[in-house]
Amino acid sequence: MAEDYLHRIRNKALRERVVTAEKAAELIRDGMVLGMSGFTRAGEAKAVPLALAERARRAPLKVTLMTGASLGNDLDKQLAEAHVTARRIPFMSDPSLRRAINAGEVMYIDQHLSETVEQLRTCQLPPVDIAIIEAAAITESGGIIPTTSVGNSASFALLAEKVIVEINLNQSEQLEGLHDIYIPTYRPSRTPIPVVTPESRVGFPFIPVPPERIAAIVVSTKLDSAANVSDPDEGTQAIAGHLTEFLKNEVAHSRLPTHLHPLQAGIGTIANAVLHGFIDSPFHDLTMYSEVLQDSTFDLMDAGKMIFASGSSITLSAPKYRQVMERFQDYKPKLVLRPQEISNHPEVVRRLGLICINTALEFDIYGNVNSTHVMGSNMMNGIGGSGDFARNAFLSVFVTKSIAKNGRISSVVPMVSHVDHTEHDVDILVTEQGLADLRGLAPRERARVIMANCVAPDWRDGLEDYFTRALVRGGHTPHLLEEALSWHDRLRRTGTMKPE
Amino acid sequence: MAEDYLHRIRNKALRERVVTAEKAAELIRDGMVLGMSGFTRAGEAKAVPLALAERARRAPLKVTLMTGASLGNDLDKQLAEAHVTARRIPFMSDPSLRRAINAGEVMYIDQHLSETVEQLRTCQLPPVDIAIIEAAAITESGGIIPTTSVGNSASFALLAEKVIVEINLNQSEQLEGLHDIYIPTYRPSRTPIPVVTPESRVGFPFIPVPPERIAAIVVSTKLDSAANVSDPDEGTQAIAGHLTEFLKNEVAHSRLPTHLHPLQAGIGTIANAVLHGFIDSPFHDLTMYSEVLQDSTFDLMDAGKMIFASGSSITLSAPKYRQVMERFQDYKPKLVLRPQEISNHPEVVRRLGLICINTALEFDIYGNVNSTHVMGSNMMNGIGGSGDFARNAFLSVFVTKSIAKNGRISSVVPMVSHVDHTEHDVDILVTEQGLADLRGLAPRERARVIMANCVAPDWRDGLEDYFTRALVRGGHTPHLLEEALSWHDRLRRTGTMKPE
Repeated sequence: MAEDYLHRIRNKALRERVVTAEKAAELIRDGMVLGMSGFTRAGEAKAVPLALAERARRAPLKVTLMTGASLGNDLDKQLAEAHVTARRIPFMSDPSLRRAINAGEVMYIDQHLSETVEQLRTCQLPPVDIAIIEAAAITESGGIIPTTSVGNSASFALLAEKVIVEINLNQSEQLEGLHDIYIPTYRPSRTPIPVVTPESRVGFPFIPVPPERIAAIVVSTKLDSAANVSDPDEGTQAIAGHLTEFLKNEVAHSRLPTHLHPLQAGIGTIANAVLHGFIDSPFHDLTMYSEVLQDSTFDLMDAGKMIFASGSSITLSAPKYRQVMERFQDYKPKLVLRPQEISNHPEVVRRLGLICINTALEFDIYGNVNSTHVMGSNMMNGIGGSGDFARNAFLSVFVTKSIAKNGRISSVVPMVSHVDHTEHDVDILVTEQGLADLRGLAPRERARVIMANCVAPDWRDGLEDYFTRALVRGGHTPHLLEEALSWHDRLRRTGTMKPE
Repeated sequence: MAEDYLHRIRNKALRERVVTAEKAAELIRDGMVLGMSGFTRAGEAKAVPLALAERARRAPLKVTLMTGASLGNDLDKQLAEAHVTARRIPFMSDPSLRRAINAGEVMYIDQHLSETVEQLRTCQLPPVDIAIIEAAAITESGGIIPTTSVGNSASFALLAEKVIVEINLNQSEQLEGLHDIYIPTYRPSRTPIPVVTPESRVGFPFIPVPPERIAAIVVSTKLDSAANVSDPDEGTQAIAGHLTEFLKNEVAHSRLPTHLHPLQAGIGTIANAVLHGFIDSPFHDLTMYSEVLQDSTFDLMDAGKMIFASGSSITLSAPKYRQVMERFQDYKPKLVLRPQEISNHPEVVRRLGLICINTALEFDIYGNVNSTHVMGSNMMNGIGGSGDFARNAFLSVFVTKSIAKNGRISSVVPMVSHVDHTEHDVDILVTEQGLADLRGLAPRERARVIMANCVAPDWRDGLEDYFTRALVRGGHTPHLLEEALSWHDRLRRTGTMKPE
């Protein structure tokens, strides 16, 4: 390595601020609020948080940790297990941290991903003391060039008292020019966000931080963690098939053009598989306006189906990552990474008219969706961007397999045990069984369409029985409140939702 | 009356289309979709729907009825009782129609009020056959000048096959110039909505309809129904007091300026009383960006506290209506009425940074709000614009009295029986007992703040007992699912939530 990194710090005065990760971590004191880069396990600062966890094992301290979204490299695990994380905002997906959150040891504030920096900017969240941002390089003017994610990095860096930059030598210098850093102007004199297509570039290719605010620079080399998506299986392929057929029908009825509208897809196996399914569809010249760009985005580009993708991060499997980085100059003109405030902004989502595909944990017969809480109590990951997108979508689609845990759980229930997306924000539900188009339907009509199309055969009678008996009691949205959550309670007591 | 109305139809060719309400109603056939003016009991077409109800009593027919929001003059009652309304979109507040909806006789699609015309425009709702719009006048070019509301009138008129205009001779001609009709451009080439302050005027002062689409003109004289808000009482005054104190503290901590941010308030007694409470506050130069302008808006103007108000309708008590209309030229420069798509648009709400005050039916210890369903099943009115505003607010406030039905019901419950606004969209909860500031808190912390501040003394022990036992089971949002809805079930069985 030697001094090979110096050319990445183009502002020569800043070269003096290079220190070890341990030294930089000493800037962090007990009770501080940290704003860290990292979104869907991409582009997180890696060396300083690990040094911090290491130090906390010797000398305990606690911090509030804000990020873009989830972190890779087991950082949330390390920090949770070292008891550094007292408070975590706004998303996470690590099993150790999840355990601590559900045990009440860590206070977790699960937020719409577009909203965190809005609340920071208006002092409705505690101010960020130190921002820790992974960078590919620092410009002459001190501008920070992010790596594989933007997330909340720009606002963290601009709002924090001090900034620590991690120059990652294994993140390609070719990433420069990928990012579009735009920060909305302050209210009440805010002007419209000028993004009008997925391709719009409206900001800087770097985070414009005054160099004097950069308190330390650390050199790091750890790669992003690889995405852990599973290959499409029979179930996810069936879901993709149902959605493709539905969209073909929308095109046939002139409700959509053959290039559809810009696509958004949540992170994870099912959404990735659904997008992958578009490779064999008749749609073409597709675009994406999403938060995370996964393998499927690049597969669609390789297949000549997708012409442009806007996101806040790039999260790939190991083989796809190698392939994309080898030909990055070919992909780069078709890509832009934005702050998550912009990738997820209600204003832009509604303006562009997105087709939004997100994953449900469970949904109920009236179309309410739970995407966060197992059994109404235990946090899984967080709502992430799904609310930003579903609420403002042209078409809001939620997908899930109809059963879980080898058939002991039905993903379609009488009443969801926690609501993240209300009936008002859900247009289409898809399981491997089929698709329910809820547009323009009243709750009683939705129930019939959902039960006819989305439920595994084993569970249909039980739901129909519940609905029929609820109808006798009446109401716009008929429920038997003494029984509405009994499927979940039975699961808790017996290990299955099936009647005893 | 004679021919006194002719000067209100400035396009001379259109004068030939004046017919009786009965004749105009003959254009309506069984199965049609009607798009009618009317928002919060203001500016609805009055003569034609009554003629339609009358006709349906002799010769039954059914229609889908879309409006802006609720209708006055018992129109929803008349149409429901004549069995004309088969399907109703997107809001209502009439007891007869409510009964029919809860009995499953009328299919009700309860929508975010900004979204209806977006779905119409993209053919995701059935197309409007006939628009029926109340007007103060028709311009030379055939432009329709609305009356006391805009609601969805502009898009209905522009999208419908035929338009029936009701010229209401008792609606003042001075209303001309009050309205700002802006329709977002079609996607995917939509440009930003240029509203950047409550005062922004960005459209036409009339609905620009080609005159050949105006199939009939009817002359009417019925007044808008008076608003039925109750006077502030001890409870609503206490709510207003808690909120005023909170906002004063926000100003003291520089999180808000002394003119606050633009205000939005939901319809009804409590929200009206809260706004009224600002008369005695230290805030000044207030503005409003809301959907309905009630008595309190004009009281604040009269008190020199409010300098401008943007809405989609004006709904006043009888005495206030007379007073406002007598001095309308004084108020007019401080007012604008917009399509509800714009008054409620997520893009504009978020840009302006509104303080949004809406009414909850009940909320739970974790901050989820039910604003529509009594006992999880029975529709009250509808979500209205509360979701458009709460989701995108600078500060999302929900207010309610802590008890209902002479103390037999607690408005704070272990788990709401229906979710309209999730924990992610609720910043502040206020009852007459006190105010809970939920910003930046995890669910367990929220529960403690809510129980300490918002709950009536009689009910605190019961909630604390539930929470304490749920904590033993654990989770990010601890619940006992077998018991979570038991308070509602007890109310159903025994007439009170109190333990037997």
